Amino acid sequence: MKSDAVTVLDRCDQLAKLSCSEEGIERVYLSAEHRACNQLVAEWAQQAELTCWEDAAGNFCTRLEGAEPGLPAVVLGSHLDTVPNAGRYDGILGVMVALCVVERFKCRQQPLPFALEVVGFGDEEGTRFGTALFGSFAFAGHWEPQWWELEDSAGVSLRQAFLDYGLDPAAIQTAARKASDLLGYLEVHIEQGPVLEAEQRALGVVTAIAGARRFQLGVSGQAGHAGTTPYTLRHDALCAASQMVLAVEALAQQGECVATVGQMAVRPGAVNVIPGEATFSIDIRSERDAQRDEVWDSIVARLEHIATERGVTLSIEETHRASAQACSESLQQAIAEGIRRSGDEQPRFLFSGAGHDAMAIGKLTDVGMMFVRCEKGISHHPAEAVTEEDVSIAIDALEHSVLVLAERYAART
Amino acid sequence: MKSDAVTVLDRCDQLAKLSCSEEGIERVYLSAEHRACNQLVAEWAQQAELTCWEDAAGNFCTRLEGAEPGLPAVVLGSHLDTVPNAGRYDGILGVMVALCVVERFKCRQQPLPFALEVVGFGDEEGTRFGTALFGSFAFAGHWEPQWWELEDSAGVSLRQAFLDYGLDPAAIQTAARKASDLLGYLEVHIEQGPVLEAEQRALGVVTAIAGARRFQLGVSGQAGHAGTTPYTLRHDALCAASQMVLAVEALAQQGECVATVGQMAVRPGAVNVIPGEATFSIDIRSERDAQRDEVWDSIVARLEHIATERGVTLSIEETHRASAQACSESLQQAIAEGIRRSGDEQPRFLFSGAGHDAMAIGKLTDVGMMFVRCEKGISHHPAEAVTEEDVSIAIDALEHSVLVLAERYAART
Repeated sequence: MKSDAVTVLDRCDQLAKLSCSEEGIERVYLSAEHRACNQLVAEWAQQAELTCWEDAAGNFCTRLEGAEPGLPAVVLGSHLDTVPNAGRYDGILGVMVALCVVERFKCRQQPLPFALEVVGFGDEEGTRFGTALFGSFAFAGHWEPQWWELEDSAGVSLRQAFLDYGLDPAAIQTAARKASDLLGYLEVHIEQGPVLEAEQRALGVVTAIAGARRFQLGVSGQAGHAGTTPYTLRHDALCAASQMVLAVEALAQQGECVATVGQMAVRPGAVNVIPGEATFSIDIRSERDAQRDEVWDSIVARLEHIATERGVTLSIEETHRASAQACSESLQQAIAEGIRRSGDEQPRFLFSGAGHDAMAIGKLTDVGMMFVRCEKGISHHPAEAVTEEDVSIAIDALEHSVLVLAERYAART
Repeated sequence: MKSDAVTVLDRCDQLAKLSCSEEGIERVYLSAEHRACNQLVAEWAQQAELTCWEDAAGNFCTRLEGAEPGLPAVVLGSHLDTVPNAGRYDGILGVMVALCVVERFKCRQQPLPFALEVVGFGDEEGTRFGTALFGSFAFAGHWEPQWWELEDSAGVSLRQAFLDYGLDPAAIQTAARKASDLLGYLEVHIEQGPVLEAEQRALGVVTAIAGARRFQLGVSGQAGHAGTTPYTLRHDALCAASQMVLAVEALAQQGECVATVGQMAVRPGAVNVIPGEATFSIDIRSERDAQRDEVWDSIVARLEHIATERGVTLSIEETHRASAQACSESLQQAIAEGIRRSGDEQPRFLFSGAGHDAMAIGKLTDVGMMFVRCEKGISHHPAEAVTEEDVSIAIDALEHSVLVLAERYAART
């Protein structure tokens, strides 16, 4: 008989085959592969005699009733869609671990004081329509009517994509869950970062999902002949931008944020011409919005100082701003206790720099997240990898976390 | 009657109309505009009863005999070709000032102890065949046989272009001049830099034409998620490259060279991904090769240190290397004295960071150069500008420089 971890990994492998691309894994919202994926997951759930359905947003759902029918539910889940050329675990692993845990409770026939649900969200990555978290926003009741007119790269609107898939746009609100029907949401996800691997830990407790701000910056100096312009008369946009890149790094590090310059371009960009223009991006994140904003203000002050010193002009445009989503203290403790019972006595708490369904679900109910170590922190790439041992510990830890909640709930009622 | 400076500027304006492009000035080697340009300059020379010819490389030539026919010549000149979207003075001004000075001596009928020649080189910029200085290399007798197979963007070989223009490739060696027939070469050129303007001087004496070395550098770090990778685990290629850009600037400045990073690109270049790769160029110049090479060695050592500290790998490829061409002490002094006699008692000596025909002619005979202030140091652009007053001073100064040489030569013989 296969271990649960092997079953989970096998299922991830099978889902990886449901791809619109022959070369890599790609499964986008409301596609034929989306349907095939939900059907395959439903087959597995039905083999365990679990009730399954697809909600009005195309999210896969299954439910195990608690001690009596209709009790509020603890929801376990993540997403089943992928980016192009994806790995096989980002999102998917969390749904498979959740299903495995519910199967264990189903099999054990030991009733919980709440219902257990698994949700496999249909859209977290946002690859098809350029806006992420459609599945979890529908679930949380935060659907925006203007989304209906968004189009994919083939010009198909979201509304049409719903109709083509066989969903009724008018029924979208029926996907929304009531807060009073839920006790909280727990999500298992690969870390997508290198911290757990560096510290040789299988699992981590997520404290918050960072809120990112993004900016496009422009430095305007003066182009000039590389051979004939002495230093005293230069206003080199790239030298100024280089100083700024290092200032961003130093100040973010000092302020315990992460900030990244991911894009950099210079004009005219000739080997023998002093750059007259430099443009670059900044992405800054922190688990606390106030901390992030304070560090950002100090960065702006420093960059303006550099611009003045170098006789260049600086422009800053904010292109994105999201608030951090804190994980509830109570669910953090439940997950930490689950991890302890699975063998790590002093669980590592860390924030998530990447976005997750839990950000949307946090608008509806308490959220908690558990990270699983992944090889070299790689994600969104075919090289995404987890070990069987870590998956085994993750299944146990999530099961224990649910039991902790059950104990607490029983004690309270 | 027009002043000589106005005539020179008028002629530059007329030559600017001989362009293959309607939008800007563009006149490349062995084109219909090249022919029309040489013809128009010959008309002006013939009006002054000067003998004109086109040599075997398509260079415009004219000669004023000295006290007796066949004396060795002092050659004055520059080039008549342009880059695309050019200004009207780069090269052309030098030929027109030279012609004006020869016209003065012709008109005065006061024989010099040497012949005076004007050469308008047909190719300095190298725009058509990607290799510069064809005209002056032919004149200097440094023609490379492999050049014949070079092709322009339309696939026309240099050999075919010679034939199409009506020149005989087999006769190219007849363009080569004998060192014993020459006393030296004097070139007037716009500065193409901002030094004279900043110091409020019309003219400058060139000490040397800098030898440039060029490099392409690659920094290989590790791409990673901008939100999930803590600083302790980053190997950010752009942060490393930024430190390197600033090190290049600091060390070159300290070593009295100029070095420029004109190109910079990062990969993958996404706002939310830590750059894994950065590539950039370095151009380093000095009036002395040994000084430049010493500074370059110190730059390499510093960049390697930065790479080690940041855990990234560094690759360096040399893509270009040219030696500096010193201007002869004697011609520098003649030009300085010419400038003094035109009103600037303490002439400014400066090196040329840009390349010039004098680099090629320096392989044949002594060279000297005089720079003319140009507005904001702009060149290779329609905004290239000189003032009538500066041109007037330049004509006088070049005439005086020739007289200084004549006095010296007379004293010596």
